[in-house]
Amino acid sequence: MSQEEGQYKLSGVLTLLTDFGLTDYYVGAVKGTVLRLAPGSALVDLSHDVVPGDVAGAAFLLGAAAPSFPPGTVHLAVVDPGVGSERRILVARRGEARRGEALYVAPDNGLLTPLLDGAEVRSVARRDLFLPSPGATFHGRDRFAPVAAYLLRGEDPQELGPSIDDPVRLPLQAPVRSPDRLRGTIVHIDRFGNLVTDIPAAWLGDRPCRAIVGSHTTERRITHYAELSPGEPGLLTGSLGTLELSLNGTSLARHWDLERGTLVEILLLL
Amino acid sequence: MSQEEGQYKLSGVLTLLTDFGLTDYYVGAVKGTVLRLAPGSALVDLSHDVVPGDVAGAAFLLGAAAPSFPPGTVHLAVVDPGVGSERRILVARRGEARRGEALYVAPDNGLLTPLLDGAEVRSVARRDLFLPSPGATFHGRDRFAPVAAYLLRGEDPQELGPSIDDPVRLPLQAPVRSPDRLRGTIVHIDRFGNLVTDIPAAWLGDRPCRAIVGSHTTERRITHYAELSPGEPGLLTGSLGTLELSLNGTSLARHWDLERGTLVEILLLL
Amino acid sequence: MSQEEGQYKLSGVLTLLTDFGLTDYYVGAVKGTVLRLAPGSALVDLSHDVVPGDVAGAAFLLGAAAPSFPPGTVHLAVVDPGVGSERRILVARRGEARRGEALYVAPDNGLLTPLLDGAEVRSVARRDLFLPSPGATFHGRDRFAPVAAYLLRGEDPQELGPSIDDPVRLPLQAPVRSPDRLRGTIVHIDRFGNLVTDIPAAWLGDRPCRAIVGSHTTERRITHYAELSPGEPGLLTGSLGTLELSLNGTSLARHWDLERGTLVEILLLL
Repeated sequence: MSQEEGQYKLSGVLTLLTDFGLTDYYVGAVKGTVLRLAPGSALVDLSHDVVPGDVAGAAFLLGAAAPSFPPGTVHLAVVDPGVGSERRILVARRGEARRGEALYVAPDNGLLTPLLDGAEVRSVARRDLFLPSPGATFHGRDRFAPVAAYLLRGEDPQELGPSIDDPVRLPLQAPVRSPDRLRGTIVHIDRFGNLVTDIPAAWLGDRPCRAIVGSHTTERRITHYAELSPGEPGLLTGSLGTLELSLNGTSLARHWDLERGTLVEILLLL
Repeated sequence: MSQEEGQYKLSGVLTLLTDFGLTDYYVGAVKGTVLRLAPGSALVDLSHDVVPGDVAGAAFLLGAAAPSFPPGTVHLAVVDPGVGSERRILVARRGEARRGEALYVAPDNGLLTPLLDGAEVRSVARRDLFLPSPGATFHGRDRFAPVAAYLLRGEDPQELGPSIDDPVRLPLQAPVRSPDRLRGTIVHIDRFGNLVTDIPAAWLGDRPCRAIVGSHTTERRITHYAELSPGEPGLLTGSLGTLELSLNGTSLARHWDLERGTLVEILLLL
Repeated sequence: MSQEEGQYKLSGVLTLLTDFGLTDYYVGAVKGTVLRLAPGSALVDLSHDVVPGDVAGAAFLLGAAAPSFPPGTVHLAVVDPGVGSERRILVARRGEARRGEALYVAPDNGLLTPLLDGAEVRSVARRDLFLPSPGATFHGRDRFAPVAAYLLRGEDPQELGPSIDDPVRLPLQAPVRSPDRLRGTIVHIDRFGNLVTDIPAAWLGDRPCRAIVGSHTTERRITHYAELSPGEPGLLTGSLGTLELSLNGTSLARHWDLERGTLVEILLLL
């Protein structure tokens, strides 16, 4: 399928998300390979500072960033502690009514979890696309990059391999609601120390509440950080439409000494 | 105004300067939004490692980097502790005789201070450009990026909002000179530990002098770092044309235990 | 020489490798200058987090990443403790049978060591290309960037200056082999704590062996990290085709407390 006849339209944009860090040659080698095999692609870093092997952290970042990109963007995510093993390489194709279609390339280890619903997922079988490798430690360069380049050239994802229905999924705990409380999890702690939860802000609306995290609580509702007095924690709607707990100008994660994965309870008052 | 009829010519380049860090999805989401709304733009990171909320540090970096870029570059700077509040969003347009024109988008908190002289500054009133936001915490994606994309598409800055003459300015202390001494401030400490001052090197010329910073002094004048013996501090003309204090191969900031904002005195000898 | 008549074909890609870090305005100013003087160039960061002044570390990264890039790529590497001194600025042109030609711009301090064999090396004499500098501390912006832009515009490398045959070379110790043992060096420790050696994996093949590094040894041969049990060190073929020592999921460099430059011995068994 040439791009002209294609069922999907490309933006020419490739995003990259890895745990390779920025002090090695790995990110450069992946980018060089993509530009060699798909000249003219526009490369955008999501992050390369994922904690080594933190598949869940990468899955969150990918799910959060991807919707902002133009339709026809290819997203390449390589956090791959199983590199060199028989774990599959996945290509997911996901149409979004409002946003158009996007393509995702990642190892089959749960990294695509937030993007699997409604996606067509294939296991890459086209070993002819892979580069000759001196070893089996750098599939980012030798396998993932050529697959991404294949997609960036507008070639047919259907010819990459068979459709599958059993991609590895992270055991995400969905938030729950009952008449008097909402329960969820801190799914991300950002650079500013904000505690991002997975509880939809729409579940709460503007009802008064008490947020409880471990031994800490707050009843303060705000719409933006600057409303808070120094040292005062507040609850607000974050950038993903979920509830977020924050201090103004300093890290609540450090202040409360909390980690990702901590449970959050929102007690509805009256 | 279409770009063709335009009074300004675009380079298609957008620079990005934030305090978002590189471990979150924030920079990716801003870039994705720009590429979605202004396809084909060339994105260049100035830095995303500004200390959270350090508006003055960001203002220095922007003022230092911007003159190197081609005419018609759009500079987007988001260090925005007041995100979500009623602080204005500014667009500044600044022509430089030698370099052509540039456009700047930033919150109205002083970030544009080094670039305001001679600039036409507008307060963005075009709420129709803003994206629907789940919350009020990520104007970088939901407001600043669409405004930058508007400019990158070559649309008319004049239609963004009214011209204003009261942008917030940082209370920068200008350097001063008298017949026997020059006084200024350490405005930046770079990665190498060099102490960058705001004292124009031309004020000193090649006159002998003694530099005094707190309890430390040096009379050693050099043109480049490698002239210095180990442990010997020297005074030279830095990359912005101002005086700089340095060690060779190691950090003078650590050696002298100094911070940005420290006063520097240059005593002219004889 | 225009690009059309040219003896080399450009990819329009420029890679950048520096020790400037990502918290300063330096990388931005270099990129802005290149885009001003060679509009439309595609900029790719190799790394800017080279340890300040670590020429050998930068040489390794450049040699490792460059082969992945398209023919006609220009590589700009500025780790330059001698900035402002009389050290030369080099342009190396290196054809690779399989990969086409690449151009390298770097200070004459050994940074190009892994790329000098078979390269045509010139010392830049075209001071007319250099930008007027306020000082002599930022040749990255004022000298290297314009030279890179000259090449990116497709102009003739031969007119940059005389061919030279005495570029500075790092005193790299080549690995050696004898009938019963291989000897080499840890040339890189990556983000994951893998110990990358310079010993070609082909020298070993699949013969049983004992790897000895200081007081540590292992006889475990693997093809990928996930084969290892927790805490078990293994020897495998790394991404450059050389032997590598690793733990699974954690840093062997920290576990064994080793630094770059440590000697490695591979004892061939039977």
